[in-house]
Amino acid sequence: MLVGTAEYQTRIRKTKERMATKGIEVLLITDPANMNYLSGYDGWSFYVHQMLIVIDDEDQPIWVGRTMDANAAKITTWLYHDNIISYPDTYVQSETKHPMDFVADILKQIGQDKRRIGVEMENYYFTAKCFEQLKTGLPNATFQDATLLVNWVRIVKSDQEIEYMKKAAVLAELAMNAGIEMINEGVRECDVAAKILYAQVTGTEEFGGDYPAIMPLMPSGEKTSTPHLTWTDARYKNNESVILELAGCYKRYHSPLARTIHIGNPSEELKKLAQVTVEGIEECLAMIKPGIALEEVCETWTKSIAKYGYTKESRIGYSMGLNYPPDWGEHTASIRKGDKTILQPNMTFHMIPGMWYDKSGFEVSESFRITENGCETFANLPRGLYVKNEALIR
Amino acid sequence: MLVGTAEYQTRIRKTKERMATKGIEVLLITDPANMNYLSGYDGWSFYVHQMLIVIDDEDQPIWVGRTMDANAAKITTWLYHDNIISYPDTYVQSETKHPMDFVADILKQIGQDKRRIGVEMENYYFTAKCFEQLKTGLPNATFQDATLLVNWVRIVKSDQEIEYMKKAAVLAELAMNAGIEMINEGVRECDVAAKILYAQVTGTEEFGGDYPAIMPLMPSGEKTSTPHLTWTDARYKNNESVILELAGCYKRYHSPLARTIHIGNPSEELKKLAQVTVEGIEECLAMIKPGIALEEVCETWTKSIAKYGYTKESRIGYSMGLNYPPDWGEHTASIRKGDKTILQPNMTFHMIPGMWYDKSGFEVSESFRITENGCETFANLPRGLYVKNEALIR
Repeated sequence: MLVGTAEYQTRIRKTKERMATKGIEVLLITDPANMNYLSGYDGWSFYVHQMLIVIDDEDQPIWVGRTMDANAAKITTWLYHDNIISYPDTYVQSETKHPMDFVADILKQIGQDKRRIGVEMENYYFTAKCFEQLKTGLPNATFQDATLLVNWVRIVKSDQEIEYMKKAAVLAELAMNAGIEMINEGVRECDVAAKILYAQVTGTEEFGGDYPAIMPLMPSGEKTSTPHLTWTDARYKNNESVILELAGCYKRYHSPLARTIHIGNPSEELKKLAQVTVEGIEECLAMIKPGIALEEVCETWTKSIAKYGYTKESRIGYSMGLNYPPDWGEHTASIRKGDKTILQPNMTFHMIPGMWYDKSGFEVSESFRITENGCETFANLPRGLYVKNEALIR
Repeated sequence: MLVGTAEYQTRIRKTKERMATKGIEVLLITDPANMNYLSGYDGWSFYVHQMLIVIDDEDQPIWVGRTMDANAAKITTWLYHDNIISYPDTYVQSETKHPMDFVADILKQIGQDKRRIGVEMENYYFTAKCFEQLKTGLPNATFQDATLLVNWVRIVKSDQEIEYMKKAAVLAELAMNAGIEMINEGVRECDVAAKILYAQVTGTEEFGGDYPAIMPLMPSGEKTSTPHLTWTDARYKNNESVILELAGCYKRYHSPLARTIHIGNPSEELKKLAQVTVEGIEECLAMIKPGIALEEVCETWTKSIAKYGYTKESRIGYSMGLNYPPDWGEHTASIRKGDKTILQPNMTFHMIPGMWYDKSGFEVSESFRITENGCETFANLPRGLYVKNEALIR
């Protein structure tokens, strides 16, 4: 359990307030980050169906999951053991039984089957089949989309959560430095990845790290034209760039960070791209403060790079923090045109204005929190293009 | 691209045969493992919507994904670049636009919107919302559940795939040995996890490893009562057990492996549990051969442990191989009562008869392939309880 019971109760209260606003009486939470946020539940069991049921007039949520994971719920959550209900293994990946049939039965048994039920329609862990089975099993319920309901509660972090993200940033710095130091001509991508993973998890003398929700992304050479490739066991060549995007993770809280390394002599074009990108991100960091809208941040970015003739179509950042694979983003606010989210203290974002072209790319990013009168980055690592040109002077 | 074009074409042909049997004309594939299997596509981009469209009378599938990932599709797949279609970033995690609207538009444009369309209803990457948007966007289509259609094609591996799994087993052995060696009283869980991750990925001189679809599971002490906990930065104590379940991963192919370590002097009860479990798994491995049904394997297990008064409710294994987070299992065949899948050469399974009690547990597992007349394990590591009792003799 990561925070005191009082903090969980505050979170539950805020969740119920949002439920009330939307007319939702029973909320079925399948997003593992939302489950963790409200109950503390933490285990790699999200590959089978599991859920937290929040009922408007009940104090505590109910955890539903697979029998072998019930002890994990007892160990990691603040819930009464009576509120931990598990389904038999015959429901797991079966052609004839579905865990949502079990959930429907439970809701009937506790008299919650005729209510207005919120479901997270757009979540990895609530499949199309889940919804079909629930509709069949609960013909008297009214369903409502509750996607991101809890995520929007999560968007402003508590001081405790900020502390976790600061620790995550220490881990991110360690991992990034390990990667930057090791990358060079002739070194295998997998050996760099291994060093990064090691640093992310072994951490410091004081604290270790958790697995991040995304594995290190580290395209090199022509592969830097796209951001989401991981690694192979090929060797780096002279005169190629490597983009490292990774996060430190502490108690499931992330601080992502991206930097670009060039092996050998960078082209003028790449050096210019790096300068423009760094200037753009720094102009944004300088103007970010409570009260402004995210789209204004994006506008600052767009104007900054336009001075040099650059454009960018994709968003330049997003809210993030607590999460599980496959994403550390919260899927709520994005730093992009049209996003009218107003910044508040202790909102946390990853600003990552990646610039990708047909044969190359450049990334530099920062994770930061909104402060009382500005913002502060979690990590503290020089921004720019890291050049490894030992290869040239051998 | 991991195999020759001919192998991809064989896979497409087998997929189309199954489509024909089920009356499916257009298949929308959202499972990243199925996408990789048919196209070679490999990137950590599954956190946004992406898809492979297989059309019964078209030679090549169509890849649909986010614009910034299109270059990843060009780099990793065997597809014509014309078959790589990407949606603008405004569709990403938006409140007003959904990538499935874009998919519906594409299907209309290419005249596939009035056909019988198969969708993977029970897949992490096909949310309830995806299905709703497709139904709205394609009112003239007939939808059919195509869950596991490609997974069942995947269940029998090619020789090339078996080679990958053998390499994955080498990585699993390295990682397991690193963990077993390091675990001891006073050592931090995160430091062991870091060593395991390092070994999984740095691999050997000849080849490196990929990220496994599941992070190392390593409950200790009372936490061994449940299988899916990862690690913390706490230190191991004397007289506690640690269960390690991990996999090596080579080109996205897995060989999972579990072993149990005890620090200090194991109880007679634990020693007996270990003996019974090892005997059970070995009796199963001895009787497995082509032509028998999986339920017979489970029956052998049940009888074997019943001799000593033990029972187990949950399944003892499952088909596995190529995969992405959050699971390395294929979700097709399970080693359990009622599973009538008939074993064929080059089917591959992870047999993991975990035994969990209220305060403790024991696991030992093997990944294996069915051979012409029996089975062979991928890894080669002694089975039993690993006892670390240096703590006792200090």
